[in-house]
Amino acid sequence: MQKYLTELVGTFLFVLLISHAVNAGAPLAALFVGLALMALVYMGGWISGAHYNPAVSLAALIRGALPAKDFVPYVLAQVVGGAAGGLVASRIFMRTFMPAPGKDASLQAALAAECIFTFMLALVVLNVATTKKTAGNSYYGAAIGMTVATAAYGAGGISGGVFNPAVAIGAFAGTGGNFPSYLAYYILVQLLGAAIAAIFFKIQSRNQE
Amino acid sequence: MQKYLTELVGTFLFVLLISHAVNAGAPLAALFVGLALMALVYMGGWISGAHYNPAVSLAALIRGALPAKDFVPYVLAQVVGGAAGGLVASRIFMRTFMPAPGKDASLQAALAAECIFTFMLALVVLNVATTKKTAGNSYYGAAIGMTVATAAYGAGGISGGVFNPAVAIGAFAGTGGNFPSYLAYYILVQLLGAAIAAIFFKIQSRNQE
Amino acid sequence: MQKYLTELVGTFLFVLLISHAVNAGAPLAALFVGLALMALVYMGGWISGAHYNPAVSLAALIRGALPAKDFVPYVLAQVVGGAAGGLVASRIFMRTFMPAPGKDASLQAALAAECIFTFMLALVVLNVATTKKTAGNSYYGAAIGMTVATAAYGAGGISGGVFNPAVAIGAFAGTGGNFPSYLAYYILVQLLGAAIAAIFFKIQSRNQE
Amino acid sequence: MQKYLTELVGTFLFVLLISHAVNAGAPLAALFVGLALMALVYMGGWISGAHYNPAVSLAALIRGALPAKDFVPYVLAQVVGGAAGGLVASRIFMRTFMPAPGKDASLQAALAAECIFTFMLALVVLNVATTKKTAGNSYYGAAIGMTVATAAYGAGGISGGVFNPAVAIGAFAGTGGNFPSYLAYYILVQLLGAAIAAIFFKIQSRNQE
Repeated sequence: MQKYLTELVGTFLFVLLISHAVNAGAPLAALFVGLALMALVYMGGWISGAHYNPAVSLAALIRGALPAKDFVPYVLAQVVGGAAGGLVASRIFMRTFMPAPGKDASLQAALAAECIFTFMLALVVLNVATTKKTAGNSYYGAAIGMTVATAAYGAGGISGGVFNPAVAIGAFAGTGGNFPSYLAYYILVQLLGAAIAAIFFKIQSRNQE
Repeated sequence: MQKYLTELVGTFLFVLLISHAVNAGAPLAALFVGLALMALVYMGGWISGAHYNPAVSLAALIRGALPAKDFVPYVLAQVVGGAAGGLVASRIFMRTFMPAPGKDASLQAALAAECIFTFMLALVVLNVATTKKTAGNSYYGAAIGMTVATAAYGAGGISGGVFNPAVAIGAFAGTGGNFPSYLAYYILVQLLGAAIAAIFFKIQSRNQE
Repeated sequence: MQKYLTELVGTFLFVLLISHAVNAGAPLAALFVGLALMALVYMGGWISGAHYNPAVSLAALIRGALPAKDFVPYVLAQVVGGAAGGLVASRIFMRTFMPAPGKDASLQAALAAECIFTFMLALVVLNVATTKKTAGNSYYGAAIGMTVATAAYGAGGISGGVFNPAVAIGAFAGTGGNFPSYLAYYILVQLLGAAIAAIFFKIQSRNQE
Repeated sequence: MQKYLTELVGTFLFVLLISHAVNAGAPLAALFVGLALMALVYMGGWISGAHYNPAVSLAALIRGALPAKDFVPYVLAQVVGGAAGGLVASRIFMRTFMPAPGKDASLQAALAAECIFTFMLALVVLNVATTKKTAGNSYYGAAIGMTVATAAYGAGGISGGVFNPAVAIGAFAGTGGNFPSYLAYYILVQLLGAAIAAIFFKIQSRNQE
């Protein structure tokens, strides 16, 4: 229960901070989104693993770092937390955000960016936060946060830089209206990228522990 | 005694650096304010816990991480240090700052921002700096500093981004005149946010240690 | 095998992120390139040492931190990964980059910059990631990443800031055409700088372990 | 001997990077100067303590963390390294820098800034890098580097942000001509600030170890 609560409040604060940072302005927004994630990962890491991201939870499930019974509650907590973050941002702070493919970018390129960089995010998480050999390290939050910062800075102009279904849902909760069809594809390729990362990790780390 | 001295000089340097960073200019100011806090937390953390913030000390008190007899001296040291920082900034360096609700923001939104992000700050502090399971980690200063950096970047346009009664008093000491009434409300909701964080932390961390 | 795979995917992601960051714009690009390297070093450090750079692998070989039989496979994996990163960036994301001597900089100055700062990069790697006395530290990725960030920020206007033969090859793979002759010289002086760093390290660390 | 060599090459690279970063442009220059120091502190910390700064060496001497016989060789190595960095920057890269009091700042304010922030720098160094209770931590380089970054960002417009006699000498070596009289005063108040920090540290840390 403590784990689910941590996932919920962490995702709530993450989406709330994203909506503030994005409104405060690019290009620094990407850096601050990553720093927010870093801080929140260090906050909740020792309790829940600090996924705050259904794609990361899927990768952890496949890798064997998340018990199967925890997967659905984790995702629910993340979705509820993300939606609440988006709602508070829009209702109390008048701040909304909606990531979208860049003006000069095709949907294919946007989906490729979301898939590859969610793959990278999940790969970093599995390597820095779920291996015995690196247990107890102090860098896992920085590595995870700066992965998102860099990917959002670089790929923001292509896909908007989401890499997280709970963030997509939080953005939608804040803006309301119809759920953009491209956002549904984003979520699918994010889950795909995370699943590939988990499989890749198993090959990459065989006999290494 | 060593603890109080550390809180005093740490808060003095923090407020002094804030006044310099704010005058050097947004939007990077928020980043440097957070980096300053990070450095100072690592400086004094091993002696006093490096609160430099009455709201954080309140959260630590409620959580049981600060002895009751230390609370008043801590707050006094922080207030004196903050006021001294504001005075030195204005008298020697001709630099003052006064956080205020943003032009397009209501007082309600500013108070909500101060409450929620002081809640987040205290929650991060309690999780990264007061639990046995994460004792000895090297990330606590980065997590605390970057929480303030991110919140100040995102919410700066709404409330001015204070999250710390000693900083509010330091800003007032530098500018003089009447104490702005909204600043009194800021302090109240900061203490409220921190108290909620301490209660939330107790639920969140039950049976986790 | 797991090591080579890690070098390959790490270098692939690094070059891909470089091409995105460079296109998103200077001067922050240098910071994000360094942060990307930091994250990827923490990802693969525990498996392969996370060189992602033939010059670093050469320094590690001379220092005795990389088995001789691993050198050629490491370099091959890095070159293939870098070239793949450049190709994916150009074909899927329409993003290419080609570092070059700055407008006001002579080729001599560019070669000096590439040599000196690759020396620095290799020196930092050998000191933070290959000594017994600092084994298990959590800062090695930050030190390595921020070395590249700083050198790229400062020397970017002189040489373009490469410090890595695999990045040079990745840039070439993305842009195609003739291999620029200055880039061949870059690679030579990078290897030279790294070799000097390995020799310097042996003197610097004698009797220190 | 290894210690002196490490101080020399570390200070050389630090001054060289400062001259590049300063020329690449404010306000990010302050951040990159701090990141460069962070990386170099992690590089040489395990061998020499990575002072790269006569004022820091003075504070370490007074605190009892530097053997008396090492003080003069440390300072000599730092001065030679700093001067070499300034010379290489100016002769090979055509890049010079000369910190000076800001246009709107009095010399008194500049000296106050150099004294107070060198005090802070030395205080941070003594607390994060010379106490038994925090031995083996991974944050010391980040704390030291970000102290310089923040102080240089905030006080750069007042004093130019030096906080280090070896950097002052390196700047002079690169520009040549007469030694600016204010720079001599800078060095004096830097040493004063560092000495006060060492005395303060003894009070602050009594019975804490």
